[in-house]
Amino acid sequence: MKAPAPLEALTEALRRLPGVGARSAQRFAYHLLQHDREGAALLARALSEAVTRIRHCSRCNTFTELEVCETCSSPRRDPSQLCVVETPADQLMVEQTMAYNGLYFVLMGRLSPLDGIGPKQIGLARLLERAADPALREVILATNFTQEGEATAHYIGELLRARGLKVSRLARGVPVGSELEYVDPSTIAQAMRDRRSV
Amino acid sequence: MKAPAPLEALTEALRRLPGVGARSAQRFAYHLLQHDREGAALLARALSEAVTRIRHCSRCNTFTELEVCETCSSPRRDPSQLCVVETPADQLMVEQTMAYNGLYFVLMGRLSPLDGIGPKQIGLARLLERAADPALREVILATNFTQEGEATAHYIGELLRARGLKVSRLARGVPVGSELEYVDPSTIAQAMRDRRSV
Ligand SMILES: [Zn+2]
Ligand SMILES: [Zn+2]
Repeated sequence: MKAPAPLEALTEALRRLPGVGARSAQRFAYHLLQHDREGAALLARALSEAVTRIRHCSRCNTFTELEVCETCSSPRRDPSQLCVVETPADQLMVEQTMAYNGLYFVLMGRLSPLDGIGPKQIGLARLLERAADPALREVILATNFTQEGEATAHYIGELLRARGLKVSRLARGVPVGSELEYVDPSTIAQAMRDRRSV
Repeated sequence: MKAPAPLEALTEALRRLPGVGARSAQRFAYHLLQHDREGAALLARALSEAVTRIRHCSRCNTFTELEVCETCSSPRRDPSQLCVVETPADQLMVEQTMAYNGLYFVLMGRLSPLDGIGPKQIGLARLLERAADPALREVILATNFTQEGEATAHYIGELLRARGLKVSRLARGVPVGSELEYVDPSTIAQAMRDRRSV
């Protein structure tokens, strides 16, 4: 006795999702077929639509339906600043701060040599090409403050400074609204070193 | 600035998967669009196929492409025994023991009053109808040995005994609190042989 072929195929396909093993894939498949066939049909359509319509902005590399995304083609944006982030989600977070009005480059990842993700995989050649824009004055590195994000910022910073660009990094420090007691010591140490006159 | 609509729609649709929150859904969507568009297309097709082709066996309730599944329509099966399991995965596990040659009924769930899953949700009316088969001599309850599985077995056992059927339960060779899918086949085979009247 075997599971019917379309069920096997669905379980296999669900395993393509990152971090989803055989058990979770089976649970997802059973759930959709038993309790949410509408959801399954919806997901099928959403996948097809996204694969067909979503591509990368030729300027900033983010996901978009256009050749050049709305942010990149906006005349209200300051073309002298370029903020480098890891993902579109990070880009949305920076936008929500209302503290930045320049342009973006989205790496769609970070350097992670152990996972085989090198400069080629995160499209650094395209970033360097983008950074050759004569209107550009400053590149702000806003990769994550994880080990890999820091290493990525360091690597990119070196390359861009070698091309004569001004490169900056988001300040490290104590999160706004937090109590020192609950902030980890390495963050406080960093904030101490980067203390500024008031 | 907002994420493009097809990406938003995909993230929303992925949240229909059980246990998948906003963060995971976003991670799945980014991964598929960035690293595995072939996987996304494959998953879209697999979902459509499964929704279109998979239905429930009219006899045993398991997932099948047929009106009556191959197991139910096999002449080599003993129609005097009916084994009640929670899921098709559990059914596959019992099959792998080679210790059982009767027929099945797949509840596609278990009683779970706290989650609003009562007798109606797990199709007990269909089981009772199925159990009215005059060829049937014994019903073997092989729900999981979890609290909910035991309660389900107890509830079903009462109903079937009241209809004059012999009802048995897999022997407690199966470790209490464990799920069938995780138990090695020889233990399940032993429990099948040692099944007891309840
Ligand atoms: Zn763009
Ligand atoms: Zn069947």
